[in-house]
Amino acid sequence: MTCRDALTHAADNEERYVDDLKTLLRIPSVSADPAGVSECVEFLSAHLMGMGMTVSVFKTERNPIIVGELKGTSPRTVLFYGHYDVQPPDPIEAWEHPPFAACECDGRIYARGAVDDKGNFFCIVKAIQSYVETAGSLPCSVKFVLEGEEEMGSESIADFVPQNLQLLRCDDMVWFDGGIHADGRPEVCLGMKGMAYVELSVESAVRDLHSGKAPLVDNAAWRLVWALRSLYGPDQRIAIPGFYDDVVGPSPSDARLIAGSRLTAQDILKDWTIQRLRDGYEGLPGDELLKRLYFEPTCTICGITTGYQGPGSKTVIPHTARAKVDFRLVPKQDPGDIIAKLRSHLCRQGFGDVEVSVDSAMPASKSDPDADVVRKMLDVMRSSYGQPVVKPIVEGSGPGCVFEQLGVPYVFARLGPAEDRSHSPNEYTTREAYRKGIATVIRLIAEYSH
Amino acid sequence: MTCRDALTHAADNEERYVDDLKTLLRIPSVSADPAGVSECVEFLSAHLMGMGMTVSVFKTERNPIIVGELKGTSPRTVLFYGHYDVQPPDPIEAWEHPPFAACECDGRIYARGAVDDKGNFFCIVKAIQSYVETAGSLPCSVKFVLEGEEEMGSESIADFVPQNLQLLRCDDMVWFDGGIHADGRPEVCLGMKGMAYVELSVESAVRDLHSGKAPLVDNAAWRLVWALRSLYGPDQRIAIPGFYDDVVGPSPSDARLIAGSRLTAQDILKDWTIQRLRDGYEGLPGDELLKRLYFEPTCTICGITTGYQGPGSKTVIPHTARAKVDFRLVPKQDPGDIIAKLRSHLCRQGFGDVEVSVDSAMPASKSDPDADVVRKMLDVMRSSYGQPVVKPIVEGSGPGCVFEQLGVPYVFARLGPAEDRSHSPNEYTTREAYRKGIATVIRLIAEYSH
Repeated sequence: MTCRDALTHAADNEERYVDDLKTLLRIPSVSADPAGVSECVEFLSAHLMGMGMTVSVFKTERNPIIVGELKGTSPRTVLFYGHYDVQPPDPIEAWEHPPFAACECDGRIYARGAVDDKGNFFCIVKAIQSYVETAGSLPCSVKFVLEGEEEMGSESIADFVPQNLQLLRCDDMVWFDGGIHADGRPEVCLGMKGMAYVELSVESAVRDLHSGKAPLVDNAAWRLVWALRSLYGPDQRIAIPGFYDDVVGPSPSDARLIAGSRLTAQDILKDWTIQRLRDGYEGLPGDELLKRLYFEPTCTICGITTGYQGPGSKTVIPHTARAKVDFRLVPKQDPGDIIAKLRSHLCRQGFGDVEVSVDSAMPASKSDPDADVVRKMLDVMRSSYGQPVVKPIVEGSGPGCVFEQLGVPYVFARLGPAEDRSHSPNEYTTREAYRKGIATVIRLIAEYSH
Repeated sequence: MTCRDALTHAADNEERYVDDLKTLLRIPSVSADPAGVSECVEFLSAHLMGMGMTVSVFKTERNPIIVGELKGTSPRTVLFYGHYDVQPPDPIEAWEHPPFAACECDGRIYARGAVDDKGNFFCIVKAIQSYVETAGSLPCSVKFVLEGEEEMGSESIADFVPQNLQLLRCDDMVWFDGGIHADGRPEVCLGMKGMAYVELSVESAVRDLHSGKAPLVDNAAWRLVWALRSLYGPDQRIAIPGFYDDVVGPSPSDARLIAGSRLTAQDILKDWTIQRLRDGYEGLPGDELLKRLYFEPTCTICGITTGYQGPGSKTVIPHTARAKVDFRLVPKQDPGDIIAKLRSHLCRQGFGDVEVSVDSAMPASKSDPDADVVRKMLDVMRSSYGQPVVKPIVEGSGPGCVFEQLGVPYVFARLGPAEDRSHSPNEYTTREAYRKGIATVIRLIAEYSH
């Protein structure tokens, strides 16, 4: 009966649990903001300790890693993961509510991190708390690892995990991030893309020059544009030689999972709340779109800055130009190899003046679709939300590759609301999503009681 | 003797004349800043009236045009031109002194506009003042037209001149802008390039999207990069069909002027205070470099802004992207025709989603190299500075095309210091340049005494 008690308790204490979430959301723990990060680490470790967990905070070269542990009744141990850092709120002027105020309006709670990932992992925290506050203990042992660099490449946790295999030992691993589908269907995910995030920069002179000098001098902006164009063009193929060498398409089992999700172009538009896909893509069958979404590596310009960007005109030759570029990689692609190929491609194309600095690099990963934890998660999600969409690889990147080293299967799912505004302005969660999320984790933990 | 008296008077009153210049330089009359512009117009019209000039201020759709007039002894009339607006001071953090403080340090006076154009046209003001304060009148009649939109395309003066041909009637037209050469040689110019300044913009979605969605949606940054690359590539040829149709190379007389300037790649590097020209260009003969500099139209990316530009990484697909692009045109190229060709090229290349908005458009112009005013200017510059470099067309753009409509020859020269930081941080003039500039204009006016 502990599960039912915990569920009732969570419902009875919704107001208090929502207040705690708002407190967390008000901490501006942008990955690159040390003050916000340290405030968040203090809050979370105190909060977990307050629930009776043993908490250790591990310093890293960048943001601390928090590990909490609480022994339970059964001999089984589930390791939960979450990340307390958030994306920068830019463009800040596009927010209707301040990004770190956690304003509540019509059942929505607006904040950067409301979905990605505070609003998700806090459901785990509150599920544990519900057990502790009712039964006084958990049905199974629980470990919780919270990192603060997910939005900047998860470098520290990549070092931390292999050095702390004993500390993190578990039977299964689980985490939550993102939101459910527009039609209310939940999502269960078994793999994630890898990532190579680089900055390309060019310096063509010691200062900006009057554009009348253009016939005789180089322009950093042109050099960068040409270099970028050499990577990827309107044919949608990444032109770096060897880029696709290690790409493996979907296996028959992957294809089955994709087909089972029965998503159409219209579902995707609705899920993403956008008006259109790439030209011509809306006519493609859902399976084909999902195959591309999950199994195609990509090269994205995330930002470019160069020269004059203010109002009106300024006739200058920019002397510096920078682009942030991310490569989302699929299983078997090695980010180090991709970056080496990028560098040598640029040199061969005559862009030796374009410097490549690596911001983060992480391979893709895929979990075992037949593992017990997958079945458990599917059962629980089905009972909370209905028949899940199962994704062999999600379109986002994350630390799956790191946790593969624990040698246990992993699965992750999404507890946020249907309209997922992760990384976008006006990110929000809802009371309903939070309530259902907590109940879902309570049920998942109950699955481990024997 | 009035010329010699005026010269002596200017030298005796240097301190006062420098103070007046500093007052002018402290007014932040950036073209797009209405407050700075209006303060500058007030200061200048009061200053010219204080010298006994008849002053009219003409409102325009943007920045006012000031016309001053003072009758002189001879029946000849010289029309002087200048512009009181300045470029924005960005990047402001690169300035060693505040851009609108006119700090004096080792004989240098630092300010945005110190060369372009306040420090130049104020030499005319002070030359007139020296005559007025000594002889009580001028050797010839003088008209002075000052505009406030030169740095944003001179649109209002383009309308104003043809509507005020009588008001501006004159025998010759003269202006000053920029600086002398590193070796101390002065420069006399007989033409200027045209300009088409456009902004290219793309909108691919209603908001930035998580870059995991990249396989299925468009990216405004990529669209813009591809569109830009379609205009101009590493072969240094502008790829817009018909772009070069109307381009006319240097005439024999142009070639003679170019050869006469005897400039080398090293001179150009020194003049521009830069480390290098475009790859391979330093080996070219000076004549070839100058031919390209004066007679080649260019396409310059002046700035690009899109997506995330802050520290660290943000994995987004930018939904908007904008580039500021200037085309410097040569005589016979029609800016309207060039913009039409640009638009149709983008459409034909599949970039119908790239919007082109025109910021300014102005054709090139060329004056008569055998005109009397050219000989006068050459004589005066030679006596002040030594043998001049004569440029058939300068690399910058300007309102030459507008004043061609007056039907009189024009010539312009440069009174600023050798290191010309127009449009760059730490722009400065020197006491010496200002002193010599005033003396030069005093001598030029004296040439019109009979």
